Amino acid sequence: MFETAEVGHRIDKDQFDREELRLHAQLLEAQRALRDAKFPVIVIVSGVESAGKSEVVNRLNAWLDTRGVQTVAFWDESDEERERPAYWRFSRRLPPRGSIGILFGSWYTQPIVQRAFRKTSREQFAAELVRIAELERMLTDDGALMVKLWFHLSKKAQQKRLDKIVRQERRKLTPYEKSFGKLYDRFAKVSETALQATDTGPAPWHVVEATDPRYRDLMAGRILLQALEQRLARRKAPAVPAARTVQEPEVGAHRAVLDTVDLRATLSPAVYDKRLAQEQARLNALGWHAYNAKRSTVVLFEGWDAAGKGGAIRRTTAALDARLFRVIPIAAPTDEELAQHYLWRFWRHLPRAGYFTIYDRSWYGRVLVERVEGFAAPEQWGRAYGEINAFEAQLLDHGICVVKFWLHLSREEQLRRFRERKQIAHKQYKITAEDWRNRKRWGAYEHAIDEMVARTSNARAPWHLVAADCKRHARVTILKTICDSLEHALQRN
Amino acid sequence: MFETAEVGHRIDKDQFDREELRLHAQLLEAQRALRDAKFPVIVIVSGVESAGKSEVVNRLNAWLDTRGVQTVAFWDESDEERERPAYWRFSRRLPPRGSIGILFGSWYTQPIVQRAFRKTSREQFAAELVRIAELERMLTDDGALMVKLWFHLSKKAQQKRLDKIVRQERRKLTPYEKSFGKLYDRFAKVSETALQATDTGPAPWHVVEATDPRYRDLMAGRILLQALEQRLARRKAPAVPAARTVQEPEVGAHRAVLDTVDLRATLSPAVYDKRLAQEQARLNALGWHAYNAKRSTVVLFEGWDAAGKGGAIRRTTAALDARLFRVIPIAAPTDEELAQHYLWRFWRHLPRAGYFTIYDRSWYGRVLVERVEGFAAPEQWGRAYGEINAFEAQLLDHGICVVKFWLHLSREEQLRRFRERKQIAHKQYKITAEDWRNRKRWGAYEHAIDEMVARTSNARAPWHLVAADCKRHARVTILKTICDSLEHALQRN
Repeated sequence: MFETAEVGHRIDKDQFDREELRLHAQLLEAQRALRDAKFPVIVIVSGVESAGKSEVVNRLNAWLDTRGVQTVAFWDESDEERERPAYWRFSRRLPPRGSIGILFGSWYTQPIVQRAFRKTSREQFAAELVRIAELERMLTDDGALMVKLWFHLSKKAQQKRLDKIVRQERRKLTPYEKSFGKLYDRFAKVSETALQATDTGPAPWHVVEATDPRYRDLMAGRILLQALEQRLARRKAPAVPAARTVQEPEVGAHRAVLDTVDLRATLSPAVYDKRLAQEQARLNALGWHAYNAKRSTVVLFEGWDAAGKGGAIRRTTAALDARLFRVIPIAAPTDEELAQHYLWRFWRHLPRAGYFTIYDRSWYGRVLVERVEGFAAPEQWGRAYGEINAFEAQLLDHGICVVKFWLHLSREEQLRRFRERKQIAHKQYKITAEDWRNRKRWGAYEHAIDEMVARTSNARAPWHLVAADCKRHARVTILKTICDSLEHALQRN
Repeated sequence: MFETAEVGHRIDKDQFDREELRLHAQLLEAQRALRDAKFPVIVIVSGVESAGKSEVVNRLNAWLDTRGVQTVAFWDESDEERERPAYWRFSRRLPPRGSIGILFGSWYTQPIVQRAFRKTSREQFAAELVRIAELERMLTDDGALMVKLWFHLSKKAQQKRLDKIVRQERRKLTPYEKSFGKLYDRFAKVSETALQATDTGPAPWHVVEATDPRYRDLMAGRILLQALEQRLARRKAPAVPAARTVQEPEVGAHRAVLDTVDLRATLSPAVYDKRLAQEQARLNALGWHAYNAKRSTVVLFEGWDAAGKGGAIRRTTAALDARLFRVIPIAAPTDEELAQHYLWRFWRHLPRAGYFTIYDRSWYGRVLVERVEGFAAPEQWGRAYGEINAFEAQLLDHGICVVKFWLHLSREEQLRRFRERKQIAHKQYKITAEDWRNRKRWGAYEHAIDEMVARTSNARAPWHLVAADCKRHARVTILKTICDSLEHALQRN
C-alpha cells in the first residue's frame, strides 16, 4: 500500500512559492462555494510518527479562511468521554454543514495503536474497522465529503528525521518516540490493514509521501482542493454516487512507483544458468512438498507487452511436475464469461488443494487494460480494487499462497524487442497493432499501475515489481520469489 | 426481527386459487422481460427447519418458465469444493444474466449452523457476515437482483409441524430434526444476527410467515414478482441506486404486528396502586445499584398520540433520584441540529456512566413520522434502519442498557381520549391539528411500525409493544420491563 509513497517526490523552493500562491487562492474560492453548498467536509490527518502532521495542519489552517474551518485534536480521552461509547467524542465535534473540520487524530488512532501494541486481538481490530467503515458510510450517505490523508515515511526516512530532531534539539528521544521507531514494521502492517479495509469509493484514502515537507504540504492542499472542487461540481446531481475516478493530483514532476525499480539489474549467462538450475530444483522440491501438505499456489503475471511473461512462465512450469499445475491464459472473455461477474472466470480456475494455477494476465485486467481502454466504466473499475482485495483475502484465508508479478521494462527496451519480433519469423505472430497502441498509452498505464499497487499491495499478497530489461535476471528473480513465498507459506502449515 | 412473522396470516383455498392464476401469469410476463433485461436474479430460500422451504422451491418452479430458471441445492460440500475457498462452490453455480437462480441453501447456511452449534466464535461469525455482505454488494453492484427470503415459524408452530410429521408418517423424529427443535431459541438468535447484519439497501431480507402454506407460497411469489417488476421498471436508470422503498406486497388481509398486542389487558385501581409502588421501589433501588456499578440506561418511548407516554415517563422518573436521570423531549430539530447528521442530536444526550437518559420520542422518528410525512426521502429513511442498528450496537457494546417502548392503543380509545382532551381545560393544549392528521394516517403508520419492528428489534434491544388502552396496565408493564431489563444488564456486570 505504501510503495507509491516511497518514490522520492521533491519540490524546490521556487516551485513551492509559485504553487502555494495559486493553491491558497483556489482553496479560499472553493471554501466560499462550500458555504452555500452546505455539506460538511471532514479532513482526517493521520500517518506515521514524525511525518509532520501538525505542520500540515498548521499549513492548511494558514491557507483556509478561519471562519469556515475548525481543527479538532483528539488527545487522551476525558472522563466525560470514557464513560460514553467511543464515537460520542467524535460525534460531538464533527463540523456542521458548510464548514471544514480538520481531525488531527481520529477514529483510526486508537484502534491502530492498540492493535500495534497487541492490546486488541486480530478479530477485535477487524470488527473495529467494520464499525469505522459503517460510520464513514453513514457520514457520506448524509452528504459529508471525507478527505482522508495518510502521511507516510519510509523506515529510513523516519529514522533520519528522528535523528535530526535529537541533533537539533540536543536531547534524547522520548521513550514514546523510541518505541515508534522500533515498532515501525508492525505499525506499517497494522496501518496497511486499516487503510485497505476502509478504502471505500465514497471515502478513499490518499497516501502522501511525507519525506519532503514542501511536497507533503502542497499535496495535502491539492488533494483537499481537488476533492472540494469535484464535489462542488457534482452538487447538481447528488443522487448519482461518486465513482472513484479520482486520479491523485500532480505536484511537481510525476514519479511513478515503477520508477523505483532498478532496471540496470542484470545477470551474466553463466551465472544465470547456474542460478536458474538451482531455483528450478528448489521449486520442484517445494512443489511436491506443497502437494503433500495440500497447500495450493496461485501465481499471476502482469507486465508490459514484450516484458517476457511467456518466457518466465515457461521457466516456472519447466520446474514443476506436469500433473501439478495449470496455466490459464487470460484473453477477452467468452460469452459465457460475460454473462457472469467479471471475477467468475478467475474463480472457476482456482486450484484444488496442493496444486498450482498460473494466470498469464489476471483479474487485474479490470484496473489495467479495461480501465485505460475504457472497457470498464469508472464506477466498475473503481470498485474493483475492493472486490479484488476481498477475493484475494478469501484465497489467503483458505491458505492459498498468492504471488503477484509486474514485469517492468524500459520503453527503449520494449521498442527494441518489438522491432526484433517483427524481424524474426517465428516471433512475428507475437506483435500486433494492439501492442503499438498500448505502448502509446504508457503514461496512462503508469497511473493505473500506481493506483493498483497502492490499493492492492499488502503484506500478505505484495506486488513484486520485477526488473525485466534483462530477461535472465527477471526469470531468476521470479523463480526465487515463488520459492521464497511458497516456503514461507509452507512454514505456516 | 421475527415479530412480524408471527401475526397469524392465513389465506383460504378459494382466494389462493384466484391469486395463483394471476400471479402465475404475471411471473411469466416478468420472466420474459427479464430475458431481454439481462441481469441475473438470485433468489435465496432459507429459514427455520420444517418451514416448507422445498415446497416453496417446487411452487416457484411450477410458476416459472423452466427455461429461464435453475434451482441449485447446496448439500454437503464435495471434496472438490472443500479444497477451495468457501465461495468457489457458490461462484460456479450463480445464474447467468437474464435468468433466475433459486439457491436452496446458500452462503448463509453453514455460518448459521456452525454458530448455532458453537463451532465458531462470535467474532468468526461476525467476520463471516461481513464477507457475505461484501459478496452480495459485489453481486448487486454488478447488476444482480437479490431476493432473499427467510421462512419463519414460531417455536410453537414448528413443534406442531414436527409432531404432525411424526403422526402422519408414523415414525420418530430423526436426531437431526430433534436437535433443531430443541435448539430453536439459539437458532432464532443466531439467524436474527445474521439477517440484521446483512439486511442492506440493495439486498434486503424478506421475512415470510410460514405457518400457513398457502400464505407462505403466495407471499414468496409476490415478493419475487414485486422485486422483478420494480427492477425492470428502474432499468432505464441503472445508475440511480435503489432506495429501500419496498413495502412488502400484501397477500390477503393485512395483519400488522400491533394486531398481536392484546388490548384487553387491564388492571384495577387497587391492584395498580400496589404493583406500581412495588415496581417503583424496585426501580429506585436498581437505579442506585446501576449508579454504583456505572451502568447507564437509555429508555425510549414511542407510541400513538394520546397513548400515555407522558404519564408513563412521569411514573418512571418519580421512582428515580432526580440527580440520576434526564428526560429529553424530541421535537422538531433546531438549526444547529439540522446542520449535522440526524443521529447527532441523540448522540449528544447520551448519559454518563451510571445515569439514565429517557427519550420522549427518539431516533425512530426518522422511520416513523419523517417517513410517513415525507420529511425524509425514501433513501434517507431506508438506510436509517441500518444506521440505527449500528448506533444501538455501539450503546449496547459499551454496556448501556437499552429499553424501547411502543405504546399501542385502539383507534376507538384514541378518539375517546382526543375528545376528552378537548373538553378538559388543562388538557386542551395537548391536542392539536397534527394529532388529528396523524390519526388519519393510521394505516401508513402501521406499515412503518411493521418495518421498524422487523428491522430493528433484536435479542439485545427488543421492541416492547405495550397495550395502553388501560393506562394503569401500561404504566406497570413499562416500569416492570425497565426493572427486568436493568436487572438483567446488571447481572452481566
